[in-house]
Amino acid sequence: MGGESYTSPAIFEAEQEHVLEAMWFCAVRSGDLAHPGAFRKIQVGRESVLVVRGRDHELRAFLNVCRHRGAMLCTEDEGQVRRNLRCPYHAWTYGLDGKLVAAPNMASLKDASGRDIDRVEFGLVPVALREWLGYAWVCLADDPPSFEAEVMGAITERLGDPTAIDNYRIDQLEVGRRVVYDVAANWKLIVENFMECYHCATIHPELTEVLPEFKDGLAAQYFVGHGAEFGSDVSGFTIDGSAGFETLPGVAPEQDRKYYAITVRPTVFVNLVPDHIIFHRMYPMAHDRTIVECDWLYTEDVIAEGRDVSRSVELFHRVNEQDFDACERTQPAMSSRAYRHGGVLVPAEHHIAEFHNWIVGKLGNSGNEGGE
Amino acid sequence: MGGESYTSPAIFEAEQEHVLEAMWFCAVRSGDLAHPGAFRKIQVGRESVLVVRGRDHELRAFLNVCRHRGAMLCTEDEGQVRRNLRCPYHAWTYGLDGKLVAAPNMASLKDASGRDIDRVEFGLVPVALREWLGYAWVCLADDPPSFEAEVMGAITERLGDPTAIDNYRIDQLEVGRRVVYDVAANWKLIVENFMECYHCATIHPELTEVLPEFKDGLAAQYFVGHGAEFGSDVSGFTIDGSAGFETLPGVAPEQDRKYYAITVRPTVFVNLVPDHIIFHRMYPMAHDRTIVECDWLYTEDVIAEGRDVSRSVELFHRVNEQDFDACERTQPAMSSRAYRHGGVLVPAEHHIAEFHNWIVGKLGNSGNEGGE
Amino acid sequence: MGGESYTSPAIFEAEQEHVLEAMWFCAVRSGDLAHPGAFRKIQVGRESVLVVRGRDHELRAFLNVCRHRGAMLCTEDEGQVRRNLRCPYHAWTYGLDGKLVAAPNMASLKDASGRDIDRVEFGLVPVALREWLGYAWVCLADDPPSFEAEVMGAITERLGDPTAIDNYRIDQLEVGRRVVYDVAANWKLIVENFMECYHCATIHPELTEVLPEFKDGLAAQYFVGHGAEFGSDVSGFTIDGSAGFETLPGVAPEQDRKYYAITVRPTVFVNLVPDHIIFHRMYPMAHDRTIVECDWLYTEDVIAEGRDVSRSVELFHRVNEQDFDACERTQPAMSSRAYRHGGVLVPAEHHIAEFHNWIVGKLGNSGNEGGE
Repeated sequence: MGGESYTSPAIFEAEQEHVLEAMWFCAVRSGDLAHPGAFRKIQVGRESVLVVRGRDHELRAFLNVCRHRGAMLCTEDEGQVRRNLRCPYHAWTYGLDGKLVAAPNMASLKDASGRDIDRVEFGLVPVALREWLGYAWVCLADDPPSFEAEVMGAITERLGDPTAIDNYRIDQLEVGRRVVYDVAANWKLIVENFMECYHCATIHPELTEVLPEFKDGLAAQYFVGHGAEFGSDVSGFTIDGSAGFETLPGVAPEQDRKYYAITVRPTVFVNLVPDHIIFHRMYPMAHDRTIVECDWLYTEDVIAEGRDVSRSVELFHRVNEQDFDACERTQPAMSSRAYRHGGVLVPAEHHIAEFHNWIVGKLGNSGNEGGE
Repeated sequence: MGGESYTSPAIFEAEQEHVLEAMWFCAVRSGDLAHPGAFRKIQVGRESVLVVRGRDHELRAFLNVCRHRGAMLCTEDEGQVRRNLRCPYHAWTYGLDGKLVAAPNMASLKDASGRDIDRVEFGLVPVALREWLGYAWVCLADDPPSFEAEVMGAITERLGDPTAIDNYRIDQLEVGRRVVYDVAANWKLIVENFMECYHCATIHPELTEVLPEFKDGLAAQYFVGHGAEFGSDVSGFTIDGSAGFETLPGVAPEQDRKYYAITVRPTVFVNLVPDHIIFHRMYPMAHDRTIVECDWLYTEDVIAEGRDVSRSVELFHRVNEQDFDACERTQPAMSSRAYRHGGVLVPAEHHIAEFHNWIVGKLGNSGNEGGE
Repeated sequence: MGGESYTSPAIFEAEQEHVLEAMWFCAVRSGDLAHPGAFRKIQVGRESVLVVRGRDHELRAFLNVCRHRGAMLCTEDEGQVRRNLRCPYHAWTYGLDGKLVAAPNMASLKDASGRDIDRVEFGLVPVALREWLGYAWVCLADDPPSFEAEVMGAITERLGDPTAIDNYRIDQLEVGRRVVYDVAANWKLIVENFMECYHCATIHPELTEVLPEFKDGLAAQYFVGHGAEFGSDVSGFTIDGSAGFETLPGVAPEQDRKYYAITVRPTVFVNLVPDHIIFHRMYPMAHDRTIVECDWLYTEDVIAEGRDVSRSVELFHRVNEQDFDACERTQPAMSSRAYRHGGVLVPAEHHIAEFHNWIVGKLGNSGNEGGE
């Protein structure tokens, strides 16, 4: 993939349209929005989207734009309203289900045919939403692709067995730590970095200590169903290899003492270890900027008992920092003539070529907009 | 008006060319430049313009560019020169009337025909200027439109009577307070906000206390000649409704205890109340940034006696802050697909449609430059 | 030259391609890289270039991009490696001569024909390099132009005699002081400023005190072989005209007590005085930003003895600040309609027209990219 793919604002805009706004996008941890009226504002492609817990306890998503004159309904990143979403400009007021419930002089408002305006038609613009693994996934497409095929299917394709992920009961876990990274690199560099382990020996000393096979450079994702085994002297997936927590209740014996990494395109990485989950969501903001939100998930008991998660958090937090440093060092060179036609994919990276082909296919002709 | 109209740099550039540089633009309070050599530098469309008081006490305007090698003559926002405008790069020196009066080795400078260079032809590029209401209005057009029709006519159209504005003798008032606002919003959002009062009940509690009819949402500008009446328990146009100053000498009985708001396109708002004037000038700087300079004007006596203007200033200063907050909250959502074809104009806002048509007409085909 | 030439990003990009990346570009003082493994990273047009001292003590230049996946090899501006340049992402390792010497799993790396990969073909991309006057000059062109004609020829053309520059033995001098200026102006404004002295009387009081003929406004560069003579009461090229150091060993009697200024297009200014050299290199970073690195060069003895260079540094440092201020004041006005077709070149500036023609010729049709 030529360097322009990482530096062209026009290609990024094509990706916003044909990838980020067209596919299922992992938006928010459902449990973050515990009570009716809790909301979170997120960026999906070029759109600001609100995810809101309804009075019926359902999550729904809407474009964060008042139908009247276009003010942003919510400018805070997250918050809690009492009963309604009220636009602070002219007080158009929407139920948590998006319906227009009140507006000043509402009786005088008529549609083009002179009838009272329809409370649904003039309600907030809805965005498709599905919940899975304890996260709300949204899709801006008019006709969303199959969630089962695209999201669940990606995990099955990696793990080889559709039930393997269920063992971890990720939807029942709780967030023990969240770290947000603001990375000065194109989102595809972050995907590619996660897809290969040829760099592991060079930049991840702590990780390769825990997972010795990573020293060989073969990505954990390379073989269907393969998990990287803990070193024989390693007790747990922690910064110093010391013991972690009890193995998650449903985890199978063959999943124990193993690390699985899964990419769910376009913006999610799931990391499975026996006692916790590391879950990354990306928010691509510009051709050269990506916000990554990473959750460390533990059982309700671990959280309730206030047990110390810092040794397990520290391991992957270092990995994140090492990876994002590498991506930030790569981004500026993407504009060089030396990278005009891309670089070299060594054998351990050949599956990245498939990712490149996939992107090219998604963009179709629009990917040429920024071309020479 | 579709959201792109507020977010496209290309459309903003078309507006700079066909609106801001083509119409009369209110530049500066004449009284700010009291003495010969006093100047102010302002941004008009894409041009930096100097307004200067001449030795004959006339105001004149020039492009702020040396004719020789293009250095900016003045880089300060305002100042005072002694006799001339001297370019600090090569010392080309212009009289306050714009004529080239001196240059190093001037005797050796010849025009293309070998003649001594003409001091007017090589003088500063003049900009048309008219004074009215105590302000200097400039026009960058080669052939300026009729000041009487476009500027004075706008006020007559609103007030219904060409003499109504004269009663306030605005040119004889003095600046009691000036506040400059840097607003992260397109200038047209600020115009539209000023044109309607549907938002008043929601965001202007202090204003609607003084002007109770504003709670109903009908804009003061909606009816020719109509002024919004003070509440019966209101003594003056102040933050707490307490008494203001003496009614301005010329104000007619039917104008007393009333508020009139007038839009003079493209960038001026005039607010008339019995004892002072609130005068807004906008300087559109980018598609998403507008500087607004607001003057509170009082009689010479009020200023000379040092009377406390803070209660009257505070009322409209809060209104300004409330309005500009709303505009800033609206700007980011203009790029949403939900606003691609614009929003809804309720009955109290229908006259904004006329403003939209007017802009579209001004831009003609050039408005499509940034289009899809 | 119309104002757009200084404000258009598209024209700047054409200049990067057809001028900065096509000509010999003065990169770095050779003596800054004294030991094997010393490197400096510089910006040449759109490319990041490494200049590195080899184990054989030769200087070489490479694109600062790993051939594997495009990470920047060096992100620091300068530094020292021990034996190799090792990419910190995947540990591809290059010799100081650019050859690929090691990579993880290197034995498994094959080229498209299934052969072991070639260590030169997969080495760093080399950049042409020549040393002269103690500086390394690099050229990104596939087929670099003649160094003798373009670089040496420019100096001969100015001084009239190919041996005149040799007298100063510039390659044997040492850096006594270096000042880096970050100038908010197009690089061509800085060239034009250096090419004329019509501004000297206005902005350079200290310089014209030392070189009285500069008060007349004729550029030192205007006449072949001409040097500006020190004032009769001036002892040396210092801020106060006090004595400088001993005349450089090779300087001819007719060169003594004289100042010569030479422009070597596109980005170098050389200033010769009897006892030191002031050498400017520009790094054009954007259409409105140029970094200028200025070296004051003295004999090895002056440096070794720790003699006080501050009075000679101060003179041209002030000249630099005065000039760059003027350029920064000119840049913003380049977008004015008053400069659409450029300004006026007075007789003392007529040779700037030749520079304008030269640029237009370099850009050919590509200069129209940003045109109207």
